[in-house]
Amino acid sequence: MTRRLTSRLLSAVASLAILLTAFPARAQTDPLPGWNDGPAKQAILTLVRTTTDSSSPSFVPPGKRFATFDQDGTIWVEHPMYTQMVFAFDRVAALAPQHPEWKTTEPFKSVLADDKAAMSKFTSKDFLAIFVATHTGMSVDAFQQTARDWLGTAKDSRWHRPYTELIYEPMLEVMKYLRANGYRTYIVTGGGQDFVRVYSEQVYGVVPEQVIGSAVATKYTYDNAGAGILMRPPELLLNNNFSGKPEDIYLFTGSHPQAAFGNSTGDQQMLEYTQAGPDAHLMMIVLHDDAQREYAYGPADGLPPSDVGTFTQALYDEAKSKGWIVISMKHDWKQIFAWEK
Amino acid sequence: MTRRLTSRLLSAVASLAILLTAFPARAQTDPLPGWNDGPAKQAILTLVRTTTDSSSPSFVPPGKRFATFDQDGTIWVEHPMYTQMVFAFDRVAALAPQHPEWKTTEPFKSVLADDKAAMSKFTSKDFLAIFVATHTGMSVDAFQQTARDWLGTAKDSRWHRPYTELIYEPMLEVMKYLRANGYRTYIVTGGGQDFVRVYSEQVYGVVPEQVIGSAVATKYTYDNAGAGILMRPPELLLNNNFSGKPEDIYLFTGSHPQAAFGNSTGDQQMLEYTQAGPDAHLMMIVLHDDAQREYAYGPADGLPPSDVGTFTQALYDEAKSKGWIVISMKHDWKQIFAWEK
Repeated sequence: MTRRLTSRLLSAVASLAILLTAFPARAQTDPLPGWNDGPAKQAILTLVRTTTDSSSPSFVPPGKRFATFDQDGTIWVEHPMYTQMVFAFDRVAALAPQHPEWKTTEPFKSVLADDKAAMSKFTSKDFLAIFVATHTGMSVDAFQQTARDWLGTAKDSRWHRPYTELIYEPMLEVMKYLRANGYRTYIVTGGGQDFVRVYSEQVYGVVPEQVIGSAVATKYTYDNAGAGILMRPPELLLNNNFSGKPEDIYLFTGSHPQAAFGNSTGDQQMLEYTQAGPDAHLMMIVLHDDAQREYAYGPADGLPPSDVGTFTQALYDEAKSKGWIVISMKHDWKQIFAWEK
Repeated sequence: MTRRLTSRLLSAVASLAILLTAFPARAQTDPLPGWNDGPAKQAILTLVRTTTDSSSPSFVPPGKRFATFDQDGTIWVEHPMYTQMVFAFDRVAALAPQHPEWKTTEPFKSVLADDKAAMSKFTSKDFLAIFVATHTGMSVDAFQQTARDWLGTAKDSRWHRPYTELIYEPMLEVMKYLRANGYRTYIVTGGGQDFVRVYSEQVYGVVPEQVIGSAVATKYTYDNAGAGILMRPPELLLNNNFSGKPEDIYLFTGSHPQAAFGNSTGDQQMLEYTQAGPDAHLMMIVLHDDAQREYAYGPADGLPPSDVGTFTQALYDEAKSKGWIVISMKHDWKQIFAWEK
């Protein structure tokens, strides 16, 4: 490059740099427009401000910054049934012609008859049988394709929309805001890792390698052409709920997040682990208190702890005693879904 | 922003863009200066060129690009003994005062006596006993600190340098070159994930979340102050060798890499899985054929397959039949280590 061109290049870079830094204040807009002002919104803004300001004692280098989000009930709707459970029941119906014995065998018989009373009494053994029948025994590619096809056509019973539209817009704003500030945003779900990875990037902007979920072991083998493939045997490798969440966050990342978002006892240990980290941290739990715009359930129902996680009174009390921030869907969120606009 | 300023800004950006694109050829320097020209170097350059050129049929979008590297024998020295095994033996010595019974109990007795003949006959059961005694029973933080302390002082017996300097410079160049072209670079090692994560970023530029290795299960519990901590029980969760490599790559990323680098039968399935992916792909294995500058071992030794992986004649034959590229350390690498310069 000639000296003259180098000089022109440097001059152009200098002009650009001056112009870009001259107006930082004017470029600022509210990064969380779906949130009403209040302690919850302020806590998120404060975490980002203090961890990204290199002169702050709470500064965290960009490469270390990450936040973890539970999925069901935290970033998308979990009522009246987990979406992946609806998928599993639909798969039972789809696979029934190949399993004539299911017509007379529980738990499949009740699913096929849509016997809601019987289904409400399913034990974890029943759910396991349904899970094994619908989620294992195929290649990982075949499973993902089945999930993709179902997600493309299934609709929920209340809003009649694809499940991938039942996303909480204010939480999407938080994820985008964090990413714009150098945070990686992980989904850490008790649901299936492979299921969520099918849509995570398109729906949440979360790349597959930042989805940590419950996972079956895979088994490496060969297809008929001799190519390496991975099968899904009926063997659970990661049970990513309760204590499994911090354990798997550590397995995937090697460290503590600076922020964690949950909504049930299944997220409790993840929030505790976040609080135990060496950096500044923020723990938040979503309270479903808006029966009109979404659903209302939680501590007021006096629910007992369940084996999939519940927002109990005990969780509420722990949150209050430990300084975790409860997000009220009714009061903190201006809107729930993007399509309400 | 005023219209005039906007106009100046746009003008500056346009000038810059023109200047930056006007001289692409002149700005190019050899991205792999430690490699002699030949099929190995050309294969790496070709993969990057074809997968990053959006007009190429082999183009891969940046977010999908990643490559996997075995560690021992592929990116750092593994002879005469795996570094982590040296660490384990040193830990036996360090912990011996707390275990007087080890003086008379195998396999610890032989380690403490530095009885190389006996150690060379250790079975996998012996190694397991040493692994459990030195790698489990403490918190994850305590383990990492112990590894960090050891790596800061231990030196190898041939070059008398820290183990973290026994890195193959040409492979570091490949990692940097790939990252500069939008690839994530994962270490996929049969060694311990927690051990490698202690130094991976500083030594290889690989962030902890991109280190996939063998891993003990962790157990979430509480310290005396009630804070959440993770302990290391004597339970293996991931055996990241042989078939474990593709299985764990899928667990961590959800897809096939476009490039994989190994040096033994322990990497064979990872290379096969890479070749089975839908995108353009490159499979390479490092042949240790330079006794003068490093070590020479492999197919010529007629080694049987071992349970930790070996460069056997069968692997060499598979490589040739499948189009994998064998990297000759002697012929393909101008230099082995950075400090040879």
